[in-house]
Amino acid sequence: MTALGHAEESRFEKPLTLSPAKERSRVVVLGAGLAGLVAAYELGKAGYDVTVLEYQNRIGGRNWTLRNGDTYTELGGASQKVSFSNNNYFNPGPWRIPHHHRALLHYCREFGVPLEPFVQFNTNTWLHSSDAFDGKPQRFKAASLDLIGNVSELLAKATNEGALDHKVSHEDRERLIEALRGWGVLDETLSYRKSVHTSAHRGYDRPPGGGVSGAPVPSDLLPFKDVLDPTVWRSMSFFTQYEMQPTMFQPVGGMDAISRAFARHVGGKVILNRKITRISQDDTGVVVTSVNTTTRETTKTTADWCVCALPLPVLSQIDIQVAPAKKAAIQAVPYASHCKIGLEFKRRFWEEDENIYGGISFTDQEISLISYPNDRMFSPGPAVLLGAFSMGMAGYDIAGMTPDQRLELALSQGEKIHPQYRKEFLGGVSVAWSRVPWIIGCRARWSEAARAAHYANLVSMDGKIVLAGDHASYLAGWQEGALLSSLDAIERLHKRAQEI
Amino acid sequence: MTALGHAEESRFEKPLTLSPAKERSRVVVLGAGLAGLVAAYELGKAGYDVTVLEYQNRIGGRNWTLRNGDTYTELGGASQKVSFSNNNYFNPGPWRIPHHHRALLHYCREFGVPLEPFVQFNTNTWLHSSDAFDGKPQRFKAASLDLIGNVSELLAKATNEGALDHKVSHEDRERLIEALRGWGVLDETLSYRKSVHTSAHRGYDRPPGGGVSGAPVPSDLLPFKDVLDPTVWRSMSFFTQYEMQPTMFQPVGGMDAISRAFARHVGGKVILNRKITRISQDDTGVVVTSVNTTTRETTKTTADWCVCALPLPVLSQIDIQVAPAKKAAIQAVPYASHCKIGLEFKRRFWEEDENIYGGISFTDQEISLISYPNDRMFSPGPAVLLGAFSMGMAGYDIAGMTPDQRLELALSQGEKIHPQYRKEFLGGVSVAWSRVPWIIGCRARWSEAARAAHYANLVSMDGKIVLAGDHASYLAGWQEGALLSSLDAIERLHKRAQEI
Repeated sequence: MTALGHAEESRFEKPLTLSPAKERSRVVVLGAGLAGLVAAYELGKAGYDVTVLEYQNRIGGRNWTLRNGDTYTELGGASQKVSFSNNNYFNPGPWRIPHHHRALLHYCREFGVPLEPFVQFNTNTWLHSSDAFDGKPQRFKAASLDLIGNVSELLAKATNEGALDHKVSHEDRERLIEALRGWGVLDETLSYRKSVHTSAHRGYDRPPGGGVSGAPVPSDLLPFKDVLDPTVWRSMSFFTQYEMQPTMFQPVGGMDAISRAFARHVGGKVILNRKITRISQDDTGVVVTSVNTTTRETTKTTADWCVCALPLPVLSQIDIQVAPAKKAAIQAVPYASHCKIGLEFKRRFWEEDENIYGGISFTDQEISLISYPNDRMFSPGPAVLLGAFSMGMAGYDIAGMTPDQRLELALSQGEKIHPQYRKEFLGGVSVAWSRVPWIIGCRARWSEAARAAHYANLVSMDGKIVLAGDHASYLAGWQEGALLSSLDAIERLHKRAQEI
Repeated sequence: MTALGHAEESRFEKPLTLSPAKERSRVVVLGAGLAGLVAAYELGKAGYDVTVLEYQNRIGGRNWTLRNGDTYTELGGASQKVSFSNNNYFNPGPWRIPHHHRALLHYCREFGVPLEPFVQFNTNTWLHSSDAFDGKPQRFKAASLDLIGNVSELLAKATNEGALDHKVSHEDRERLIEALRGWGVLDETLSYRKSVHTSAHRGYDRPPGGGVSGAPVPSDLLPFKDVLDPTVWRSMSFFTQYEMQPTMFQPVGGMDAISRAFARHVGGKVILNRKITRISQDDTGVVVTSVNTTTRETTKTTADWCVCALPLPVLSQIDIQVAPAKKAAIQAVPYASHCKIGLEFKRRFWEEDENIYGGISFTDQEISLISYPNDRMFSPGPAVLLGAFSMGMAGYDIAGMTPDQRLELALSQGEKIHPQYRKEFLGGVSVAWSRVPWIIGCRARWSEAARAAHYANLVSMDGKIVLAGDHASYLAGWQEGALLSSLDAIERLHKRAQEI
């Protein structure tokens, strides 16, 4: 709590400082995603002898950026070679950082990872619904103000007519009407109607200019029925989510700047290309059996402790010696199947033609959204946008397509919002997370029932083994969840190690 | 109109291309603010022989940035020497650029002025009202969601109880309730209440974390009466204003990067330190009488045409030979008296302690707002924020104070929002626009009546003279207004020049 008594904003209050570890205390960390990397970093600083085993031939896990020349092969064998111009890139995993993710921001500060604003909320983006506005995309600012205006008019008039008398005190009634009149841009009759006043919020037909013909021309309101379309209120509600509110950030040049920064400090501890096949333990320590995916050679790694930061779809296939309740927990949590598609275009037509700089356009089609690049705005030449972020059934459907079919889907749905799409298209890359070999899913989907039955068992320390990762947090799918989970896990591990 | 039939967003559709001017056609431009600079630039490109007369010893007008070592002396004689660290700066005039100000963005692109996002909308800033929340600042996200939630609950329940039956069709009623339930985060009984669901929008008492104690703790709602405080809805409404919606930009390093870019192209045409005393004309051309403010020498500048881009409080004191209706127009428009105060602090405590990165905190005190710096976030060391942007009566009151009294006011009111203020304060600078010698006001305040009576007369061409500036636009106080006004003025001037 601050001096003013504000609620806290993050579980991360100050950097972790572990007391010095016992001499020659060894820890094996499984998985070099952010949870594993931060464990290796902090335990290493405390004096532990740390080894990290990683399945991939790269460090970072979902902290991942694809660039020109990269090749990605998914489950099923389809392979994509990325062909992007200039310094363009695509983050298939996390691509934005909320202002309150203090643990992640702490490590960015500590490692000097340059961050730039991620323009999450831009009111000049489009809302598109197949069921509203005759299928024509509308500016977020116009549709959202029309919903606010209509709601304000209905409630102000109902209040004025006495319909709220049993619910709202006389004094509050006047304040409520005043608030609705201001917020909803209502006129003297408490009506929300076409005027230069409403246009000064929702946008004009002709905006104010200079000189002889500078007078603005007001815009028509959208039909009330269409303004109630779920695309409108879902988008508005999206931007009031705790994790989705500005200010947000992105690392300059790609999200993997963070894992590369960790790698500069703990890269020497990481052994790549190791597939874990068995994790066993007894009173004296842990034995991790792994296969070198290049040589097929089997190795046994012994340690005093194990931080297991493998994702659950992988861990659930590994022979791990823990209590039945923890085994049940590992099996209990399904993973989401999001799919992201990056598209490169010849020029930033969204900026040049449509005055859209960053932000997100939403649609009720399978692509779900288009998110515009936040780096190097105003620059000429090719740029990469996020052309689809498909969840739920759409995510599975798209995972079932070939990479080429996915690009065609992104183009055919995206061109309903941007007619320039086909003409300006250069190429793209898709990552369907249910087909990513090293995780087989995007993030844990905890139901309330699963949380009640299994969460405590999942995160509890079992002998020499503790689990870490965003799945072992209440922030699944967020890098902050991976860090907070891992910091909590190693603090408990360290405490137990010191007690022995 | 685009291919999709969208309303236009700016009067600026494409760069101005004037046909070649007649040989030896001379134009005198009065004032080297943005309106004068763009006139000099475009007329010069067309082949006119352009001279710009400027009162100050610098180019740019209100496009102005104060840095370490700068001295500013206001009307009344009070002088302030700016003492800022590092690369800190303060923009006393315009400090943000809307995404739809296409003319300004066009020249930034053309001149290669680097722009960065101006984080206008940040939901983690504070709302402070002396009359609500016991005077304790509240996060924008919490207060705004509570207003949305309460309004949604009231209207959803009224609709459900039939109070809206005469206004909303049966089908729309269900859609309306669904929208309110989603947008307002209502529960199954259509109530907005304390829960992890509402906290997942308004913020938690303890946010979700990782590991053993990762479960979030929901936050208390604010009292309904306080949520109706004008500070809340006025702030929400502020961010739906057409000119105030993200995405917005700022030039890297200070707003004067724009006038310096113009100066690189037309600086050689500008004569500084010239006070205009008389503007006369006949059928053959214009004579501008000016006094060199350094040598007191009087000069007569002759030209075929004159673009007069002087602000009205100055122009109204000059003997100008135009029709009585234009003279009346020049006298008719009062100017606002905004006051801005820049404060430098030892460190970015708003970022480090409070997770506030850019954006605006609002208060009902005279300082009106605190706007946090958008450059070099996360950097250590001193930083400058906008500690007051006072308008109306508050602007006049503060203009009546000494610079030291203004800083004390900013500190005493600001510390109610940030208790760190006194401890971290280094110094500051204030600009009360009614005391700025070269404009005596901030921007034109057009009433509807004045607009109807005088606007056409103000902007019309009078013989060889045309007026330009944001006051001759519907975008008073915006750089875009200055540019659009000037582009319109010189297009008309050029047309008439070609006709002769």
